[in-house]
Order: sequence, then structure tokens, then C-alpha cells
Amino acid sequence: MSDSTGAVSQVCSRFHRAIELIGSRWTGAILQTLLQGRTRYAAIKSAIPDLTDRMLSERLRSLEKEGLIVREVIPETPVHVEYELTRKGRELQNALREIGDWAERWIPLEGDRVKSADESNAGRRRVTRRAQKARSPHAG
Amino acid sequence: MSDSTGAVSQVCSRFHRAIELIGSRWTGAILQTLLQGRTRYAAIKSAIPDLTDRMLSERLRSLEKEGLIVREVIPETPVHVEYELTRKGRELQNALREIGDWAERWIPLEGDRVKSADESNAGRRRVTRRAQKARSPHAG
Repeated sequence: MSDSTGAVSQVCSRFHRAIELIGSRWTGAILQTLLQGRTRYAAIKSAIPDLTDRMLSERLRSLEKEGLIVREVIPETPVHVEYELTRKGRELQNALREIGDWAERWIPLEGDRVKSADESNAGRRRVTRRAQKARSPHAG
Repeated sequence: MSDSTGAVSQVCSRFHRAIELIGSRWTGAILQTLLQGRTRYAAIKSAIPDLTDRMLSERLRSLEKEGLIVREVIPETPVHVEYELTRKGRELQNALREIGDWAERWIPLEGDRVKSADESNAGRRRVTRRAQKARSPHAG
């Protein structure tokens, strides 16, 4: 953090914009799938079964517009569409991994709260219980 | 990503919840300030000059409720209040750093676009220009 007002504000704006880009629902899962390499539409769909066609198409368009992925129509028979991360998209890998790791440690699954606490050490358990108690009802 | 529908959905829910926690406006800056150690309210305020008292108080209450920080009233004269990250909060450090690093590389500052492109290599410049062109007008 800089002590200049403008600099702090600019850092915050960039950080916030990054969070907006990766924080839309399902975006993390789509990017994770594409981190494994160039992928057909149908393969992304089958990797994320809960995701509807409409939502997946919308997310892919948005990620393309933001310069995180490129779309290519392969003129074979039958024609198919492949998606690939740009360098901008690939470089999100570390951030996605760190957020995922933290979430796995600290965000309890529904129906998995007792197990999570039992597997933790005493210090973590104390904090986790407080956090669980504090979870807002609209989580997720 | 697991190939089980339920597992993918649960991973996405946790990831999304983590993004919600760290993605609120100013939260990144507040957590960054607290990562330097136990801090008085007034010191957080002065580190983030654009942040109003009302917003800072609201964010601190929310972070306390989520188990990311603890609040302590120090019974000196005059009484003051200090905040400290919990272990859950401290362990966000890597994720915050990675998001910040990525944002610094890929999210252009307003008024800094030409400079950003000039400083990049050719490959990055090409993608960055595409990304800049695609930036939505409500970038935050």
C-alpha cells in the first residue's frame, strides 16, 4: 500500500476489477478446465455438469471479451469450436489456486462442518467454529 | 476439478464464497494493511485515505463477523480499538498477493494505457490491447 491517496485508490480499483473478472459464478471452474489446455465446448460442458448451455455460452463470451480466452472455429466436418486461454488468462493460475486452497481450508461444505472441525488443529477449530457461526444465510 | 457433479458444484460454491469474502470494495486494502500486523482503527483509516469512516466501520464489522479479524478494545486512557487478523485472515495473504500481482500486470490504470503497452513485450502488448479494447465502461 502506498501512502498516496490516488495510488491506494488505483491499486484498489485494479484489485476490484480483477475480482470482478474471476468472481462471476462458474468462471473459476471454466478457467480451471481451460488451464488443462485447449478444449472443445462439449468437453467444458461435460467437465461442469451443473452448468447450463446458456450460462456456459454467456460466460465464454464474457471471458473472450475480457481477453482471457480465445475462441476458434475448427472447419472440420462436423465443425466444432475450441477455446484456449490467452497469456492473460493463463497467468491467473496462481491466483485461482491460492483462492481455491484457502477456500478448501476455511469454507466449510454444507453438511461437512463437524468433519472439518474434527480434522483441524485446536487453534484452527476455534476460529472455524466462530466463522461457521458467523456465516451468512445467503452464502454461496 | 472432479468429474462428479456434486463435487464440482461444491468446489464452485466454496470458491465463490471465498471471492465474496475478499471481493467487497476496499476489503483487499484493509486486509493488506492488517497483514502488516495488529493495527489501530486510526492507522487503517490513514493508510486508506479515500475510505470513509462509515465504510471502514462497516467493512471491519463484516470481516469480524466472517472470522477474518478480531477486534479488541484497549482500556487505556483514552480507550482505543485495535484489529488483528485471525489465522483464517492471515492465510489469505498468498491469494491477495497473487490477485494483486495479476491485476498489476493485466489491468491497465486509467490514463496509463499507452505506458502499460509500451512497457510490455510484443505478445503481452497484443493481448493487453485486445483486453483494453474489451474493457467494459463500468470497470470498477
